[in-house]
Amino acid sequence: MSKQPIPLEQLLVHLPLFKDLSPEKLALVVADGLLEVNAPRGSVLYRRGEPCRGLHIVVWGEVKCTFETRDGGEKVLEVARAGQCLADVVSFVDKPHLVTAEALTDSKLVYMPKAKVLAEMERFPEVARAMVGVLSSRLVDLVSELENCTLRTGKQRVIRYILKHLPQHAAGTQKAVFLPAKKSIIASQLNLTHEHFSRILRDLATAGLIDVRGRQIMISDIATLQARL
Amino acid sequence: MSKQPIPLEQLLVHLPLFKDLSPEKLALVVADGLLEVNAPRGSVLYRRGEPCRGLHIVVWGEVKCTFETRDGGEKVLEVARAGQCLADVVSFVDKPHLVTAEALTDSKLVYMPKAKVLAEMERFPEVARAMVGVLSSRLVDLVSELENCTLRTGKQRVIRYILKHLPQHAAGTQKAVFLPAKKSIIASQLNLTHEHFSRILRDLATAGLIDVRGRQIMISDIATLQARL
Repeated sequence: MSKQPIPLEQLLVHLPLFKDLSPEKLALVVADGLLEVNAPRGSVLYRRGEPCRGLHIVVWGEVKCTFETRDGGEKVLEVARAGQCLADVVSFVDKPHLVTAEALTDSKLVYMPKAKVLAEMERFPEVARAMVGVLSSRLVDLVSELENCTLRTGKQRVIRYILKHLPQHAAGTQKAVFLPAKKSIIASQLNLTHEHFSRILRDLATAGLIDVRGRQIMISDIATLQARL
Repeated sequence: MSKQPIPLEQLLVHLPLFKDLSPEKLALVVADGLLEVNAPRGSVLYRRGEPCRGLHIVVWGEVKCTFETRDGGEKVLEVARAGQCLADVVSFVDKPHLVTAEALTDSKLVYMPKAKVLAEMERFPEVARAMVGVLSSRLVDLVSELENCTLRTGKQRVIRYILKHLPQHAAGTQKAVFLPAKKSIIASQLNLTHEHFSRILRDLATAGLIDVRGRQIMISDIATLQARL
């Protein structure tokens, strides 16, 4: 059975950057200058320090954005998923890439050269507004990450991470959190070694605060966990 | 001698957000809906958690953006100066303020309600482009701050901070860095106590790497200092 490729418009209509465009306008955006990028698992989209000439947006898949730490380790800044721009939206300030971007799974992205982004922002104020919204969201995420840095202990950072990933619609006291990435990646995001992260999860489980089943974490009582922060 | 107030246009013409506007367009922006805010030293512009309904831009002065750490301390996210938007540009994502903003010196700001920003972005693509540039710059700063967090030792963070504040045009091996804020504020930005920060500066001086004179720091040899990172 042969698969029909999905038209790019259908992939893009849900992306935050284009969601306010009418189908007619979106077709105009797609018609010219937008590149599809297929990134097989493990492939590197760009490396830190390379010139940044446009915007990468994840259509599907997972892209890990990292920088090297001084001791030769790798710090995961984030894992970008469907709809997200890659973390270092630096094409507008003429700086090189701040992170290295690598596909964690087979991924599809669209790439918009800087000139195309600016032209579409000028043609369609919806895109300009959405771009500002996307950048603002990224800023909020980064400030929250920075706040995490000021938490002294690894245990505090882990508890905060778990609470942050509670489903928003959840109600009652017992809640399930599904870890959105592999434990080694989350550990890196929290400035912890994999072993330290696992030990903290075990300690929290032993204390009866959580129950860990693979990537699923059941919180026995949210208020009690919050009190440990 | 009476002082004539400086027309708002003259104050705004150098701000990154408006610098690409012609004088005629800038006059239109200023004519309606832009508020001047005079913030005496020590006054609080807004507190973390309060609703964010617009954009604050510093015209002159210094505004400290902070959040509380879990142990009741204060973490300085940044000190915003002339031309900068305050750190938490969150008005576009309908989130409350992420930081508390307090004037460190008598300061003047302009405040643009969200609706006004969006309207000007639509009317003048120059403003939309500049807004994206401003937000991108903030992102770059925050990623750099985050990178600092992953540096393990306080000494590494201090060295990186000093090197980052080297004048770009400087040449030769001996360089002067003027610390852009009081030591207590820089210490907080680097997640250090004031005492720890001072001790590190003394240690670096004793090692012959730097020479500290008030807020001026002379670097004996940049390469040697870099090697300590």
